[in-house]
Amino acid sequence: MSVFTCVSTSDAQSLLEQFDIGQLTELEGIASGIENTNYFLTTTHNKYVLTLFEQLAPEELPFFLQLMSHLAEHNVPCPHPIANLNGELLLHICDKPASIVSRLPGKSITSPNHAQCMQVGENLANIHLAGKDFLLQRTNPRGASWWKSLAPQLLPKLDADAALLLQTEIRYQALHRFQDLPRGIIHADLFRDNALFDGDRLTGVIDFYFACTDSWLYDLAITVNDWCITEDGTLDKESTQSLLSAYHQRRPLTALERGAWPVLLRAGALRFWVSRLYDFHFPREGELTHAKDPEHFRKLLSQHIDAQSELRTIWRP
Amino acid sequence: MSVFTCVSTSDAQSLLEQFDIGQLTELEGIASGIENTNYFLTTTHNKYVLTLFEQLAPEELPFFLQLMSHLAEHNVPCPHPIANLNGELLLHICDKPASIVSRLPGKSITSPNHAQCMQVGENLANIHLAGKDFLLQRTNPRGASWWKSLAPQLLPKLDADAALLLQTEIRYQALHRFQDLPRGIIHADLFRDNALFDGDRLTGVIDFYFACTDSWLYDLAITVNDWCITEDGTLDKESTQSLLSAYHQRRPLTALERGAWPVLLRAGALRFWVSRLYDFHFPREGELTHAKDPEHFRKLLSQHIDAQSELRTIWRP
Repeated sequence: MSVFTCVSTSDAQSLLEQFDIGQLTELEGIASGIENTNYFLTTTHNKYVLTLFEQLAPEELPFFLQLMSHLAEHNVPCPHPIANLNGELLLHICDKPASIVSRLPGKSITSPNHAQCMQVGENLANIHLAGKDFLLQRTNPRGASWWKSLAPQLLPKLDADAALLLQTEIRYQALHRFQDLPRGIIHADLFRDNALFDGDRLTGVIDFYFACTDSWLYDLAITVNDWCITEDGTLDKESTQSLLSAYHQRRPLTALERGAWPVLLRAGALRFWVSRLYDFHFPREGELTHAKDPEHFRKLLSQHIDAQSELRTIWRP
Repeated sequence: MSVFTCVSTSDAQSLLEQFDIGQLTELEGIASGIENTNYFLTTTHNKYVLTLFEQLAPEELPFFLQLMSHLAEHNVPCPHPIANLNGELLLHICDKPASIVSRLPGKSITSPNHAQCMQVGENLANIHLAGKDFLLQRTNPRGASWWKSLAPQLLPKLDADAALLLQTEIRYQALHRFQDLPRGIIHADLFRDNALFDGDRLTGVIDFYFACTDSWLYDLAITVNDWCITEDGTLDKESTQSLLSAYHQRRPLTALERGAWPVLLRAGALRFWVSRLYDFHFPREGELTHAKDPEHFRKLLSQHIDAQSELRTIWRP
């Protein structure tokens, strides 16, 4: 987070007058998340999180809040936005759009084990299945047309090898669009820092602000590309197998999906390579740290390309 | 940072009445640092950072503030605490101890190149030299007696191999205390996130809250252990050579220091392995993320042990 907004006790007390969730007993600013200000808000009834949206487009917020609501009501462990007495999820406080959501237990982990990877796979399948009867849609802002549109700005910043890889991969992906892959709601950013655990039990999936409508397999590839990577940056076969099997158990993968898997793994790596490249070469004004090195995802993409034929063998759940 | 404190515009205006640094024009909360709340505070005169100390022991703060003052006045690019009209560096605001310091340009980097490693080496030597006539002292709270005192709590949490390594290394270090190594002020935590750069130029060293009095070579080892590590966790010879040469140019290393280098590299790795192990197995109440995986520093320590004879050859600046 580069900026946070101060909410006073009396601001929070006024806000709570719109709700039926008790009286304020504690308000504590917490630093987590890049785009939002968050407070732990405790009332005489329960524990909540108050989020002020600092950077997201206001017109997109209803999609995210209603999606979290829908998923929470379908037993996905995710923050549940609380409606005020008028039935509204989207509030205003300190001149910012805001929301109060349920507070989840657990902590994020940096080094997942196989049991935790299985939990991630199972919960990702649950999100996909629970999203089937969610009516709103949102086009993926980080899909093929996005990376194509950024390429002209990025290519002059890259060395010859990287530029060739980027151009070749964008072309390859354009020739391998699987229109018939099963689609629906995807999280699109289920990295390690967006899941909470209590021991081996997943207690929460958070940060739905990249969620959108796209192919489920793309979401699975993004997830595997983060959770199943060893410290030296290669895909770990066993934890990949654990995550995929647990997913498959809940939502069996189709024959088309098995065939498309190596292509989608590449697409997932390309998507984050491109966004890291962009953040690195075109940093936002006022950022305090240089963006993360894009190199990690370039290597991962090259590895996926090299290992493409071998990776198919993973598909024996 | 797990918690932040809200400072209102009128709080900041009252604080500035104690100073001769102009009128408040902007106050912006920023999330950086784990132990403190920070605000960008802009006045009609200049740009500053207002820091509220959330977790540090109040009796230690004068050491840190006076050290930064001293170093800044000796041309070390570091935050310069600003004295109020009574000549005080340590303030109080919102019931917290606080300080106003100069705001430095630049950003932290994640993947340093050789030129940047040289800048780090040169500036670390400058800190050591500038600290020679700083009169206050502070015992290193993360030295040999500290890791010895934690071992009984840590050993039952480790597998047999790790426990043996920890015990053996603590004993090895106890048998290799170089009492005659040149000593003085050390930063003790000059990791990548504590240096700011504008391109290849180092524009700031920040976060002096582990600074203390200890052997300069230990500080150099801690620094090399972070800046000169490749993505796969091994020590990069060329960037190590760059950092050490640049340091040596400003403050030539003694024969004793050259001999002690492999031992101190191990001590630096042990220090952070132990603190990561402790944070991992005994997390503080209220932390939102699990502590970083200690494994990185265990591997580094093992590597240093394996490569001990080979590493001596690096010492040909």
